[in-house]
Amino acid sequence: MKLSKKDLKYIATGAAFLGTGGGGDPYIGRMLATSAIEEFGAPDLISAESLADDANVYTIAMLGAPTVLVEKGAAGADLDLALQGLQDYTGKVADAVIPIEIGGVNSLVPVVAAARTGLPLVDADGMGRAFPELQMITYNVHGVSCTPLVVADEHLNSLVVNAGSAKRAEDLVRVCAVEMGASVMLSSYLMTGRQVKDCAVLGTMTLALQIGRAILDGRRSGDPVEALLKTLRATPYYNNCKVIFDGKVRDLQRETQGGFSVGICEIAPLDGNGAPLRLTFQNEHLVAHQAGVVRAIVPDLICVVDRETAEPIPVEGLKYGQRVKVLGVSSPPILRSAEALAVFGPAAFGLKDPFQPIETL
Amino acid sequence: MKLSKKDLKYIATGAAFLGTGGGGDPYIGRMLATSAIEEFGAPDLISAESLADDANVYTIAMLGAPTVLVEKGAAGADLDLALQGLQDYTGKVADAVIPIEIGGVNSLVPVVAAARTGLPLVDADGMGRAFPELQMITYNVHGVSCTPLVVADEHLNSLVVNAGSAKRAEDLVRVCAVEMGASVMLSSYLMTGRQVKDCAVLGTMTLALQIGRAILDGRRSGDPVEALLKTLRATPYYNNCKVIFDGKVRDLQRETQGGFSVGICEIAPLDGNGAPLRLTFQNEHLVAHQAGVVRAIVPDLICVVDRETAEPIPVEGLKYGQRVKVLGVSSPPILRSAEALAVFGPAAFGLKDPFQPIETL
Repeated sequence: MKLSKKDLKYIATGAAFLGTGGGGDPYIGRMLATSAIEEFGAPDLISAESLADDANVYTIAMLGAPTVLVEKGAAGADLDLALQGLQDYTGKVADAVIPIEIGGVNSLVPVVAAARTGLPLVDADGMGRAFPELQMITYNVHGVSCTPLVVADEHLNSLVVNAGSAKRAEDLVRVCAVEMGASVMLSSYLMTGRQVKDCAVLGTMTLALQIGRAILDGRRSGDPVEALLKTLRATPYYNNCKVIFDGKVRDLQRETQGGFSVGICEIAPLDGNGAPLRLTFQNEHLVAHQAGVVRAIVPDLICVVDRETAEPIPVEGLKYGQRVKVLGVSSPPILRSAEALAVFGPAAFGLKDPFQPIETL
Repeated sequence: MKLSKKDLKYIATGAAFLGTGGGGDPYIGRMLATSAIEEFGAPDLISAESLADDANVYTIAMLGAPTVLVEKGAAGADLDLALQGLQDYTGKVADAVIPIEIGGVNSLVPVVAAARTGLPLVDADGMGRAFPELQMITYNVHGVSCTPLVVADEHLNSLVVNAGSAKRAEDLVRVCAVEMGASVMLSSYLMTGRQVKDCAVLGTMTLALQIGRAILDGRRSGDPVEALLKTLRATPYYNNCKVIFDGKVRDLQRETQGGFSVGICEIAPLDGNGAPLRLTFQNEHLVAHQAGVVRAIVPDLICVVDRETAEPIPVEGLKYGQRVKVLGVSSPPILRSAEALAVFGPAAFGLKDPFQPIETL
């Protein structure tokens, strides 16, 4: 299918939801993608299944502080340079581009790249949500090498990184991103079509679109949260979902540590009776506790939405007094394997609670 | 000529002198180079004039904290990787290696590379002394591009950097070096033989050797400082030289700022009469004032030596009560052009005093 500008609106809202509090503001990505479609035409969204096994699939993403993208102006030559730089370095001509994550701004950056280059965009990603670090991705879990990768900034400075591990690459790219003005374009995890089929979270661009449509169109029908839940239940991954809390924000501790937005948000019941819900976050929500009991935990999704409009609220948008519903949503099964949990399960974030699937809680 | 292990001893001492307080402890480089010569054989030191105009000449250097080199163990595979990585990236096979600076550890790192690879080492460098940053080099002044460059660490993580300017490359490589464990191997400023002839400071390895020999062998004749001055006066660059002060260290303010050793050292006359000499340094000595009057200033060399043995004393080795002689030494003419002064003259270090040649002071 061709991605239309209207699709982008839905994808942006769906991606904000799947960002589970992080992933950056998809509105920025939507503006960039809209302008790219106007200038270069609509890109093709293709299924992973349609890729040749030996196709060269390039990831493209923004790394760093998404808000800086606005100040830097439209993503363009820097994005081209990251993608072309990795092709030049590897000598492998790109057949398609693919997102690394589906939550937030990085769902839309690949749309910009696909529009600019004329390459098809694969309907899949490596997280089925957002995660804060480059090694926290199914591509890494399944042995795709993160490097060589190419990083480029808006002044067209660029880096080729070769690192012994994805975590090492993350550490190096993070300091470079800071030095290069807080955000950079990144092409990494070069894969074959076969690898995409084996280790990506499939169909997630379409799912983000459906989720966004449920939220936005659901407002006309009267209960967008209900419409959202209904849509989630019809998906292959996010089908175990429930409202785990309905309340208002009564306490918020949020600070920036090592480039991450880290903190705790406490949400009290609307009627004042019962224990509050306590959310712990590092960019994304990691765990929801109530009276010391785990109600939902990473890699399952913990999503805070406005209780009336179902508008996804990012961690940076949390405010005292906000009336919200908190949803617990099952993560794609590929995120729940022992190998995957070792990379982005609770322990990877320093949490003591073990992973428990939302459907068992 | 073949570089012998005995030559390394002289070069290390001469390079410590030409480091003008900075450049890192050449003893470390000497140990590495000695061990490389034992394992791989002595490398050829060749004149720049003997290079073919279209020869590919690769710089090789250590960037970061030299002391960390000791903890990291011998420079080997990381050094090979930096050199080979840049050859692979550019597709140009190396014909020779050349130092970026002659002061300190980076006079010896290229000896290690030459021994390991069997490539000849060019008897020249880009500073004729030491400077703290990558853009402060005649190669840059004369339009040789600093990038593409390759950085490698001892775990064989590596980066290819393309930057819009040498200063931008410096900023990027500096943060990467910190992240990669405080020191990295670096190959940059790929040049042709013609460019080396046009913009390098020629003959400086040999000069370092002669200076080191004057100091070490001068001790047997009784007055190594006098032997040193005599040798300097016979060189084509360092011939305007004099003892600008003879005294003891009475005040020392030294701190680490942004990875640099920054501070002030005050040296009082031995007999207590007269104004003290005040040295301002950023890794290297930048300016010597006496009663508010400039006695010597960058890029001319300000070298502190033990007043009895003429042993060069690095900024990090300055101690209260030390009895020292301070020498002002003319820098090579290629460092004194308006273009060169713009890159590493007093203003480049935030100093208000203009450059004044030592022979006019």
